[in-house]
Amino acid sequence: MKEIRASMTESLIIVHGGGSFGHHLARRYRLREGYRDRSQILGLVRTRQSMTELNKIVLDSAIENYLPCVSLQPSAFIGMRNKRIERMDLSIIVNLLDLRMIPLLFGDVAFDEQLRFSILSGDQLTSRLATELSAEQAILAVDVDGVFDSDPKRSPKAKLMQKMTAEDVRMLIQRGGKKSQSPDVTGGMVGKLSEVLPAVEKGIRVMIVNGCVPGRVSEALKGRPTTGTVIEL
Amino acid sequence: MKEIRASMTESLIIVHGGGSFGHHLARRYRLREGYRDRSQILGLVRTRQSMTELNKIVLDSAIENYLPCVSLQPSAFIGMRNKRIERMDLSIIVNLLDLRMIPLLFGDVAFDEQLRFSILSGDQLTSRLATELSAEQAILAVDVDGVFDSDPKRSPKAKLMQKMTAEDVRMLIQRGGKKSQSPDVTGGMVGKLSEVLPAVEKGIRVMIVNGCVPGRVSEALKGRPTTGTVIEL
Repeated sequence: MKEIRASMTESLIIVHGGGSFGHHLARRYRLREGYRDRSQILGLVRTRQSMTELNKIVLDSAIENYLPCVSLQPSAFIGMRNKRIERMDLSIIVNLLDLRMIPLLFGDVAFDEQLRFSILSGDQLTSRLATELSAEQAILAVDVDGVFDSDPKRSPKAKLMQKMTAEDVRMLIQRGGKKSQSPDVTGGMVGKLSEVLPAVEKGIRVMIVNGCVPGRVSEALKGRPTTGTVIEL
Repeated sequence: MKEIRASMTESLIIVHGGGSFGHHLARRYRLREGYRDRSQILGLVRTRQSMTELNKIVLDSAIENYLPCVSLQPSAFIGMRNKRIERMDLSIIVNLLDLRMIPLLFGDVAFDEQLRFSILSGDQLTSRLATELSAEQAILAVDVDGVFDSDPKRSPKAKLMQKMTAEDVRMLIQRGGKKSQSPDVTGGMVGKLSEVLPAVEKGIRVMIVNGCVPGRVSEALKGRPTTGTVIEL
């Protein structure tokens, strides 16, 4: 939040994922597959409860840093269909931005027309919001320096790709999809790249930076060059 | 929450107000009047933050009592116009009820087409939800035994009105409105009654019971007679 404050960004939406608050519960109760049986309801309740807790921590941190943030629960205004966003009412976000406030959204379990509920990831949400609102750029803060040609957590020779095009992304996704034994050569980045690709294809610059290294998010927000991966059409 | 659990109510929506978490902030920053100047933005942020905190407490208590509750942020799916609900997307609530879950809503600061933002009270929300979803009954838990003919906190002779019709309510509201020195003879009940009147007029039974006295809410939920005020067409 300090990074965001430091960047003095004018018009901004923050989206956070589930991290340790959401993922293990979603996995344990198989929420990703949609509704299967009644036992998942407890999982849904607990996952939502846990995400509410995480959101409160993030919100408190934002407000401590004087950011005019208000939480906006994605599942209250977004409907899904077969795991994809089917409809969302952007009027409230637009109004918050008009008031120069910062909407704070998060990965959520949302209603799904087909599966009754499904996971709405922070990545899908970010990409769709960036696209629908014609954002200048979307910044993804991750725990590695960007997109590598192999998994940087396993291979010391992994090379950071500083610039990528939509075509590079498509190729990497295809390559990742083929290696069934190790489906994601980049260490979990293929899922993220698949989500942001539609935004890149609409002309939005996507930056993937290490959120754990001080300065990178704020430089990216200011539009300055920093270590990370820039993806452009 | 124990009361609700004990009642075993099948289809239920819970709405909580702002209490000490919302009201003083809303008053301090004059949020009720809508947008006037930039200083209110901090008030909006802090009120929302505070309501998020209260909502977390209520949610945790519900889940501890094995209620399948999920929070639903009203301002994320309800739009206002001049302090009144203008539109709301009920699909998510309907879907939660279909899954036999309990939507947990609360008084909120919502976007207002005319005033930029305004207060959406728990009472207005309850009345509208009951009306739009054709609820069997709406129960308002308050800190007095029901509607009295004078303020029970000031007058020891105040008499509880056990039954009221829509016509009685209209008369009481009119009487309350006239006494400008003491605008609300019933001790703050006129605002609530004005909000629930449209629901009563649509044939919904409204019960006002003391939420501080054990047993009353659960009896009311079960549809059994208990101390309180029943309002029917």
